Amino acid sequence: MKSVSDPAVLRREIRAGRFTGPTTGHAGGYLQGNLAVLPAALAGDFLAYCTRNPKPCPLLGVSEPGSGAIPALGADLDLRTDVPLYRVFSPAGRRERVADVRGDWRDDLVAFVLGCSFSFEESLQRAGIPLRHLAAGRNVPMYISDIATRAAGPFGGPMVVSMRGFSPADAIRAIVLSERHPLAHGAPVHIGDPARIGITDLAAPDFGDPPVLEPGDIPVFWACGVTPQVALRAAEPEIAITHEPGCMLVTDLPAEGASIGLNAA
Amino acid sequence: MKSVSDPAVLRREIRAGRFTGPTTGHAGGYLQGNLAVLPAALAGDFLAYCTRNPKPCPLLGVSEPGSGAIPALGADLDLRTDVPLYRVFSPAGRRERVADVRGDWRDDLVAFVLGCSFSFEESLQRAGIPLRHLAAGRNVPMYISDIATRAAGPFGGPMVVSMRGFSPADAIRAIVLSERHPLAHGAPVHIGDPARIGITDLAAPDFGDPPVLEPGDIPVFWACGVTPQVALRAAEPEIAITHEPGCMLVTDLPAEGASIGLNAA
Repeated sequence: MKSVSDPAVLRREIRAGRFTGPTTGHAGGYLQGNLAVLPAALAGDFLAYCTRNPKPCPLLGVSEPGSGAIPALGADLDLRTDVPLYRVFSPAGRRERVADVRGDWRDDLVAFVLGCSFSFEESLQRAGIPLRHLAAGRNVPMYISDIATRAAGPFGGPMVVSMRGFSPADAIRAIVLSERHPLAHGAPVHIGDPARIGITDLAAPDFGDPPVLEPGDIPVFWACGVTPQVALRAAEPEIAITHEPGCMLVTDLPAEGASIGLNAA
Repeated sequence: MKSVSDPAVLRREIRAGRFTGPTTGHAGGYLQGNLAVLPAALAGDFLAYCTRNPKPCPLLGVSEPGSGAIPALGADLDLRTDVPLYRVFSPAGRRERVADVRGDWRDDLVAFVLGCSFSFEESLQRAGIPLRHLAAGRNVPMYISDIATRAAGPFGGPMVVSMRGFSPADAIRAIVLSERHPLAHGAPVHIGDPARIGITDLAAPDFGDPPVLEPGDIPVFWACGVTPQVALRAAEPEIAITHEPGCMLVTDLPAEGASIGLNAA
């Protein structure tokens, strides 16, 4: 699919059902977000959980209860139609690859949009730093680490981390560049020995594809947006809506210069 | 010795012969520099060498031929008296721990002041990152790597690197913080396996003291200000004056916010 550069145009294509796939590689230079929708009764605890764990859960925006809008992320943005594919967990069961969740929306639902790794990966690519999983056409490997997140109400549990391998010189540059993207998980949480953060077999990730490493590579681990998804599932809300992995909410926030706390509407 | 916080006061004490030791821990928040003085005939090549190798040779200032002043580094500053201890290499032989080089100064000498690691070490300490060599009362270990510098005229040769060991989490923070200090060698040049940059025995540094490493530490290597000293010596100038290691030129430049190219006078 030809790359769509304007985020509002991309959202309109998604809303019309003409764009139904992963958003990576589209709307370059704009932040994309993970979506987490849950009942208002749990929203205060989930907000606290994100605030206490800004690396895995960088908060881009929160909706008013029942609203599908977060104007600060895009004037026209509709959270119920503008994600290419959703997952719905409800009393009626689990549904995957849902294109539109207007029929599932309730007056008590609150939506959270959390930053994802796409914008820091873009920054590395612009700097000429190879991303081996992308070159191999794979998803990034993700692992359940033994780093505990800071709990809030029913939300807690381990931090999920993504791993990318680099030459030592590129690892240094990747650390420096990613630190400049606090809304895209920021600086890594670990480098080197996977066992130090409870990962016993690097070849067997808990999510995503097996890693691509070259001789002499240093494994670099970032906090991952799957962390709040795991915390959300463990809290067993009556209803929850998330995005399909890779099919993100595209926002109007520029990847450079947006700051935590300035964008939440 | 009680810490002297004002750089001009410290220079006055040094000039008067009342302060004759290492400058580390004094004039916190201000850049300190390595001194390299050589004949004007070599100055153009040495300037080019520094410009081509900004990580080991971050240029803080250059004097006019014959002048002992670099006003941009301190209005009162006198390069011939304001370093606690000098080394002089001249046709008359090598002299160490010289307190005053006014008698050695010539109309054709040009002085270069190059940034040193003190200000980034200060930044790490303020962030609560342990510096193991300082805690152990040792000098930092330095190694002749197999990373080649970019040559200019008679100046060239290998990059000398300093090594500090950190826990993985502190290594990430040290990389991020040091990158913000381009006049103090900036981000590291290597992390991890010493053999990758030609260091066969980490326990046996070429300069400084043996390393202090704790289990699980990641070795982090920075470009070192000894690099231009080695290049200078190899070029065999008729006369050269440098500082004794640790006894630096204290400047009025703030450690935060000074930039390469804005300070050279």
